[in-house]
Amino acid sequence: MRETKNKHRVVIIGGGFGGLYAARAMGKNRDLEITLIDKRNFHLFQPLLYQVATGGLSPGDIASPLRAVLNRFKNIDVVMGEVKDIDAERGVVITADQEFAYDSLIVAAGARHHYFGNEQWEALAPGIKTIEDALEMRQRIFQAFESAEKTDDPKEREALMTFLVVGGGPTGVELAGAMGELASYTLKNDFQAIKTNDAKILLVEAGPQLLNGYPEKLALKATKSLQKLGVEIRTNTPVLDIQQDHVLIKTSDGETYIPTKTVLWGAGVKPSALATVLHDRFGVNLDRAGRVMIEPGLNIANHPNVFVIGDMANFSHQDDKPLPGVAQVAMQQGVYLAKLLKKRLRGNASLKPFRYTDKGNMAVIGRNAAVADIGGYGFSGWPAWLIWVFIHIAYLIGFDNKVLVLFQWASNYFTRKRGARLITGTHFAEIPQIVRR
Amino acid sequence: MRETKNKHRVVIIGGGFGGLYAARAMGKNRDLEITLIDKRNFHLFQPLLYQVATGGLSPGDIASPLRAVLNRFKNIDVVMGEVKDIDAERGVVITADQEFAYDSLIVAAGARHHYFGNEQWEALAPGIKTIEDALEMRQRIFQAFESAEKTDDPKEREALMTFLVVGGGPTGVELAGAMGELASYTLKNDFQAIKTNDAKILLVEAGPQLLNGYPEKLALKATKSLQKLGVEIRTNTPVLDIQQDHVLIKTSDGETYIPTKTVLWGAGVKPSALATVLHDRFGVNLDRAGRVMIEPGLNIANHPNVFVIGDMANFSHQDDKPLPGVAQVAMQQGVYLAKLLKKRLRGNASLKPFRYTDKGNMAVIGRNAAVADIGGYGFSGWPAWLIWVFIHIAYLIGFDNKVLVLFQWASNYFTRKRGARLITGTHFAEIPQIVRR
Repeated sequence: MRETKNKHRVVIIGGGFGGLYAARAMGKNRDLEITLIDKRNFHLFQPLLYQVATGGLSPGDIASPLRAVLNRFKNIDVVMGEVKDIDAERGVVITADQEFAYDSLIVAAGARHHYFGNEQWEALAPGIKTIEDALEMRQRIFQAFESAEKTDDPKEREALMTFLVVGGGPTGVELAGAMGELASYTLKNDFQAIKTNDAKILLVEAGPQLLNGYPEKLALKATKSLQKLGVEIRTNTPVLDIQQDHVLIKTSDGETYIPTKTVLWGAGVKPSALATVLHDRFGVNLDRAGRVMIEPGLNIANHPNVFVIGDMANFSHQDDKPLPGVAQVAMQQGVYLAKLLKKRLRGNASLKPFRYTDKGNMAVIGRNAAVADIGGYGFSGWPAWLIWVFIHIAYLIGFDNKVLVLFQWASNYFTRKRGARLITGTHFAEIPQIVRR
Repeated sequence: MRETKNKHRVVIIGGGFGGLYAARAMGKNRDLEITLIDKRNFHLFQPLLYQVATGGLSPGDIASPLRAVLNRFKNIDVVMGEVKDIDAERGVVITADQEFAYDSLIVAAGARHHYFGNEQWEALAPGIKTIEDALEMRQRIFQAFESAEKTDDPKEREALMTFLVVGGGPTGVELAGAMGELASYTLKNDFQAIKTNDAKILLVEAGPQLLNGYPEKLALKATKSLQKLGVEIRTNTPVLDIQQDHVLIKTSDGETYIPTKTVLWGAGVKPSALATVLHDRFGVNLDRAGRVMIEPGLNIANHPNVFVIGDMANFSHQDDKPLPGVAQVAMQQGVYLAKLLKKRLRGNASLKPFRYTDKGNMAVIGRNAAVADIGGYGFSGWPAWLIWVFIHIAYLIGFDNKVLVLFQWASNYFTRKRGARLITGTHFAEIPQIVRR
């Protein structure tokens, strides 16, 4: 369909932070002919998915059509497709119905949930990696309040009003904070039979502290902010079992049975199944979490033209531990590759190894409370919240999204309303059956 | 759960325009104890669903949580539930898990699609009545362009690039206009292999003209505006059959076979299945379309305390034909009932019959082209578009929604982008299976 005329063909798998930032940085280089392949037709701003899950934002606010974002680059071809395999010998990426030859390949397919061998928990405790995940979570949260309003059984009501968040990392902390806000403020005048601020929100973390990797002082601040919102925090508390109507957690005195109908998973992630394909086809090593071990130049061993970036990759050449699975790492890696290819095409292969500049970490805990660790400075309370809001808005792709989200936040801030708390799902599309006597 | 203390108990079924406006008008009357039952937890602004279907707006922009809208009225109880039956003798509304006794009952459950006996067409030609419908339609439209971009088969591409809209009423006209804009402007720089303005958009109507019921001059203007956007209009053209890959339409010279993969249904509606329940339980007459025949005071015959309003009702006491199934009629009927009950509680049963004030009709055809018939004055072009925009925004429930939609429209107007064109669906929630050799 397209003439490639001896241009250097780059295939990018994945339109997340890594793939999209690589594509945008490479789009200016007319010596490259780029194909970006994604299963979906949009880039998703995953750090804000928990806002969709809790009714603060709509999916459209945090997603941008990939074609629209990239259409000004005439050398980028966007393909909606799912990569099934890679032919290492021929240098070809294979989707269900097409093949794409590459000179350089960038694999940036991200990560998905991980239930540590308890995959049966997935149906009971949804995580948030996709828009569909977030809508499923949103439906469960708001449906639980609706069902609690209806039931006359106090035990059932208790289980319906108990929300258990698994995982004390940023996702779990942000989810629990948003749940606390929902129950204590947003919904408090909306029901008759229940008092939503009686809802029990539990955050359980297997490790000894929340926000592992953040300075301890900030982790403590986060704990206090969550407690103010009524969130009960249990560290050193692994989850032993998840069932339809309860969760079993490990406590110092044995096991504790917690009746709950809503479990939200903010714990483990594992890399895309493409990591296994890379292992099989290129003989690359995977780490224990399944991530692809990459070289200082982000390529895989023995294949200088095959790169893996973002959440799929294990880059351990900077610190004693791998770089964290956050957007900033993926973005910087994508931009690095654009520079690397530019140099290489000019015959200069001497670009120095990738180096991540940590711009800081942050997590938000409800309205005007957040913790941030930026350039070694710790922030908390509303200054951290404000920084968090502006940084997140700055990185949203597309002018529309930025303005919409800014407005939504300003409005959520002043009213504490969450207008997007719709209970939707495919089962509603069915035509109701009336019982005829 | 709640003390009713001899108050007059009103049960409202449905939180659409009729039910919501009735509830809001009655909420101020402390002598009433109101229960609003809806299957969903939100009010939906149906007139803008076609914007969701074509990627211009997000579901959250046109939906408002019923509890949030009504929480300032302490005498209104919102129940999320689906009404299964009504016990006429006991005066009780029955849902799957609850019963609600009423002194006055207002049934405002709306309408759903109607395929005129060809219900098998529903899976092939989705209509738009719910958010799920609109998302299904959105997915099909944008997926068709993606598939057309990929295929090498010219025949398949032609079918994928042909969009057939059934029905020349406001819904069909607005859908076809939005499709014309999408193909001619929004998407035109987004693809490599296809030219989206080669897309064929067909609007077929069984009757002799578009916008039946509008002044003929405006119907002509609408026709011209659609043609400018590349829409091919066929009046006097009933649909004979719909299949996976083609539609058969009746033409003057027999039948015409149109290869198409995307059929959008904007034609018939039929009332909620509750109409049949009312027929069975109260012996009320239904018209040929299945709507409930109502009396001048909006109640059903022989039951002065059971009312039916909105799209479910046939009110034929004003003109020679029933009032149209539009939001204005339902809203005015809801407000009328609040006045009626107020008078009745004061012992005065002499309120004059309901009378609909027609504030005009309008339809929008793409960016700054619309037709409006307001108070006998006809408008078209951008003045009509502007009127349409402001009237729609004014009636959106909730301040948030108004501002968001205003911003979205201003932005869509200036950029012709449609940021909400995400292809989503439950099948994306599955974990991808990698083919292992």
